[in-house]
Amino acid sequence: MTPDRLFITFEGIDGSGKSTQAQLLDVALRAEGVETILTREPGGSPGAEEIRTLVLQGDPDRWSAETEILLFTAARRDHLERTILPALAAGKTVICDRFADSTRMYQGMSRGDLRALVDELHRLMIGREPDLTLLIDMDPEQGLHRAKARQTVEERFEDFGPALQAQMRQGFLALAEEFPQRIHVIDGNRTQDAVAADILRIVKAAPV
Amino acid sequence: MTPDRLFITFEGIDGSGKSTQAQLLDVALRAEGVETILTREPGGSPGAEEIRTLVLQGDPDRWSAETEILLFTAARRDHLERTILPALAAGKTVICDRFADSTRMYQGMSRGDLRALVDELHRLMIGREPDLTLLIDMDPEQGLHRAKARQTVEERFEDFGPALQAQMRQGFLALAEEFPQRIHVIDGNRTQDAVAADILRIVKAAPV
Repeated sequence: MTPDRLFITFEGIDGSGKSTQAQLLDVALRAEGVETILTREPGGSPGAEEIRTLVLQGDPDRWSAETEILLFTAARRDHLERTILPALAAGKTVICDRFADSTRMYQGMSRGDLRALVDELHRLMIGREPDLTLLIDMDPEQGLHRAKARQTVEERFEDFGPALQAQMRQGFLALAEEFPQRIHVIDGNRTQDAVAADILRIVKAAPV
Repeated sequence: MTPDRLFITFEGIDGSGKSTQAQLLDVALRAEGVETILTREPGGSPGAEEIRTLVLQGDPDRWSAETEILLFTAARRDHLERTILPALAAGKTVICDRFADSTRMYQGMSRGDLRALVDELHRLMIGREPDLTLLIDMDPEQGLHRAKARQTVEERFEDFGPALQAQMRQGFLALAEEFPQRIHVIDGNRTQDAVAADILRIVKAAPV
């Protein structure tokens, strides 16, 4: 049986295949008659997409880490209010490509020790955690190779060398240890179909 | 003697004359050889001005009160980091038209009981208070008349009736009671020159 009304997020380093797997899960659940919405962060609602543009355009150093965290939190609040919560209230399953774990990771770890600030802002302004998070774990070199093969206008998230990519992977794995009930680590170093089958199995086993 | 390196803010209802008085104080201090910068909120730095545009343009209901507070706090953080603190560090006196008291008032009082949230965000992300705040107190009807006489593209802050304008005035006066050492209430129902002279006297008496 496939539970509905789940709030499912995908996390992982760039090039881990999480966006593709989010799409595949969306297709698979719809095929079984589950009503879903597929969304992403930063963005996911008209206002949040505007904030995304504001944060990601231009010089990467135009915002301090603290201002960036505030802007991402504003975008998440809008996304939650306007897209995620209404969909859940309507009985839909929400599949979201990145959510608060990405902020914990990228802002909380890669730009100074800001994790405590990220956590306080989350508690104050967001509160909600996903029911289930699928962390696609991927060999950092392979992830980097995949990410670089893509053409993207938002290069700042992919502008990492192998050492930093490896550090990001470790950061996500540490988050999985911190939230063992919610975050499931998926081995992404396999065929797309194998990974997708694994994910669908975990989603179907999730408590309603 | 005129102290320098003061962080001075102006607050008050729309039409109270605070922007004019901020300009007059700037001119008066410069005439005495004090290095100043005159700035304003929301805005006051390139990034904060972009956030201002994002918040104030379009449908006033496009952002929830909570998202709006996050966006104003992001703008304030940028303004503080990029404009206010560097100017103070360079020995300049900062004169700012509106600051955190406006958020306490407008977001904290007029759109639901969000004052506690405003305070927590301020503590977490801003921290800094002005050395001196000049609250221009004004008869609400006269303030409304003045505000309406101005042509402005940002009508949402002026779209208040007399009852709401009176409530705003009371809110600012309550803040002055809450922060009696920092906030000085100035009677704005007088000539511009009389108000300006009063303000200059208070600024000169401020502790360095």
